[in-house]
Amino acid sequence: MPRAAARYKSGPYGYTQAKALVFSKNGEPEEVLSLHSHSISPSIPSSSVLVRTLAAPVNPADINTVQGTYGAKLPFTSLIGTSEPSAVPGNEGLFEVVSTGSSVSGLQKGDWVIPAVSQFGTWRTHAVDDAAKFLKINKDGLNPVQAATVSVNPCSAYRMLRHYGPNAGFKAGMGMKPLEVGSGEWFIQNGANSGVGRAAIQFGNLWGLRSINVIRERDTPEATEALKQELLDLGADVVVTDSQFISREWKDQLAEITRKGREQILLGLNCVGGKSATAVARSLGEGGTMVSYGGMGKQPVALPVGLLIFKDVRFVGFWLSKWNEKDVSGRQHMIEDILNLVREGKFRDVPVEEVKWDWNTEETTLRNTVQRGLQGFKKGKGVFIFGDT
Amino acid sequence: MPRAAARYKSGPYGYTQAKALVFSKNGEPEEVLSLHSHSISPSIPSSSVLVRTLAAPVNPADINTVQGTYGAKLPFTSLIGTSEPSAVPGNEGLFEVVSTGSSVSGLQKGDWVIPAVSQFGTWRTHAVDDAAKFLKINKDGLNPVQAATVSVNPCSAYRMLRHYGPNAGFKAGMGMKPLEVGSGEWFIQNGANSGVGRAAIQFGNLWGLRSINVIRERDTPEATEALKQELLDLGADVVVTDSQFISREWKDQLAEITRKGREQILLGLNCVGGKSATAVARSLGEGGTMVSYGGMGKQPVALPVGLLIFKDVRFVGFWLSKWNEKDVSGRQHMIEDILNLVREGKFRDVPVEEVKWDWNTEETTLRNTVQRGLQGFKKGKGVFIFGDT
Repeated sequence: MPRAAARYKSGPYGYTQAKALVFSKNGEPEEVLSLHSHSISPSIPSSSVLVRTLAAPVNPADINTVQGTYGAKLPFTSLIGTSEPSAVPGNEGLFEVVSTGSSVSGLQKGDWVIPAVSQFGTWRTHAVDDAAKFLKINKDGLNPVQAATVSVNPCSAYRMLRHYGPNAGFKAGMGMKPLEVGSGEWFIQNGANSGVGRAAIQFGNLWGLRSINVIRERDTPEATEALKQELLDLGADVVVTDSQFISREWKDQLAEITRKGREQILLGLNCVGGKSATAVARSLGEGGTMVSYGGMGKQPVALPVGLLIFKDVRFVGFWLSKWNEKDVSGRQHMIEDILNLVREGKFRDVPVEEVKWDWNTEETTLRNTVQRGLQGFKKGKGVFIFGDT
Repeated sequence: MPRAAARYKSGPYGYTQAKALVFSKNGEPEEVLSLHSHSISPSIPSSSVLVRTLAAPVNPADINTVQGTYGAKLPFTSLIGTSEPSAVPGNEGLFEVVSTGSSVSGLQKGDWVIPAVSQFGTWRTHAVDDAAKFLKINKDGLNPVQAATVSVNPCSAYRMLRHYGPNAGFKAGMGMKPLEVGSGEWFIQNGANSGVGRAAIQFGNLWGLRSINVIRERDTPEATEALKQELLDLGADVVVTDSQFISREWKDQLAEITRKGREQILLGLNCVGGKSATAVARSLGEGGTMVSYGGMGKQPVALPVGLLIFKDVRFVGFWLSKWNEKDVSGRQHMIEDILNLVREGKFRDVPVEEVKWDWNTEETTLRNTVQRGLQGFKKGKGVFIFGDT
């Protein structure tokens, strides 16, 4: 087996051997994913770029995309020579530029890029695509995992905190007012130990917001305490368990936290649904907004009508892909901002479980890794780390 | 018994004999309402106005206020000399000015006024209050019922249609964009035969919007057809029954109505809750808004998380009282606008069941009338019409 580097050289006959996880129908990852090998010609289109993958996370939304339960459906194509029309999953990842087409400017060999578009398909060793589909990032002071994991969870938390919040302007028909940075205002979130939750805690802390964080009980009281401490260390102001949160006592406890109720909570983030979502909604003050960005509990959000009418609580959803499409330059600015915080050590990496993807890694290993992601990875976020591919 | 006019004269000893429905604790109207008699001194404060009531509707929210289930609680006071601190219900009504205090300008005997504030307390024959609490209306071309019923249902429909709708601006953080008048865009509403629903049909029609209207089946198919026709005559574009609306076939039927789904419905009005609210939400296109202004079904609004996230459907509540407080001049303008439409015959009166309230009307009659309002009045809206009081 030649070293990977040897295969990247481009020139006559300098074909790149590539592999990709693909699926040609929706279903459980361990049943529908297969590992497809293909060759990439060195003569790429003039506007294209050949990249190799350095790291690619396994996010819950990727798994839902394979299952077919996600909002976005991937088109099945024969672009990489699969026998059946197929798609490559993976919404997030970091690539290194291997070679560029003749008309490409602004990108060169060795540059780090992330997808500029949603659902690029990152679970593969290499890709050739239009230069416009990549966003170059400054790799100084970053490791591949940091760069590969910036664009989904941290961006979701960043956008939601920045955009929603006290909304007097909205009520008067004059537009949403973003949370004032440094205002000391509260927000509340369930699923607080998720990737988005941890990011929200940290951004909130950096921007002078205070957070109330709801987590599910762990298997042991010690584990629950350890998780609480972990979130407090990230900058959480208050951490409570789900059972405490949906209990009768919560109303009084909340009033105590918010200085006998004198401080209103005007922003709630929900990724759970069901009773937990209703409890988030009930914790909000007049004119507050609950933003739903996930439905882990697979239960609808049930809202007492009185909250809508008399407390003027409003309910919206958040889908990062849509935001990214609508605000390309805003996304770029946000990613630079977040990566700067990472470099400065102000924003901590999520806990990661690294899964090696080498030339010899078996199909079974890869698809089982994805399947495991359904239960969540033990150490945190699952990330494929590409070695000698 | 002297004629009413005789009692209105002010001067030494010219006391006015007045009656009011009052309650001193929350409960069922027939149990907690009583008829209180009192005298009003002719020497009213210099900034006050003495009015007599011409007409006062019995709205569902009034009954909920008596029951204590409404968002606003009335303060109990001893202002009209009740033995226990009490409140006068009635949020809407029309008064005629009987006399004015020495410093009052802009109002004179014979003028028609409606409350400028919420929960004024209109279920009484007379009132004395600060001139600022009344809004003068031009009585030309109006009858008392038209003027007495303008400020709740028509105003709710007017505000909701004007304020909510296609909201691209909202998504980009730039404020809600009102429905474009004359755009031909669709809205959908349940409880379409309610006072608000009928008003929304008419305003929608006047402003070039198209409406899909959901009604509950009546007792007989003939009665259902008659109601459908009634709403079509008001300007409804489509009328469907509840059972059709929550059936599996609705999706296809809706697509047919909206030209094979090419036209999106971006505004839904909900006053029912439960399954009907979910069906309204599901009928909306991407970025649509469902506005809840009532919860007749007493069931929470259940929202599939996917509607929030992937279809970007948002859910807000509407409470007219809050709007009125925040936008006093807007309210005044809106009422003038609506009354002009009434004068021009472009906005039809709601069907009304008139209940006479004379000097001799028994307490039992009055409180039973209110209690009956719980089931809805047979002929439409219940309105007290004050005669010889």
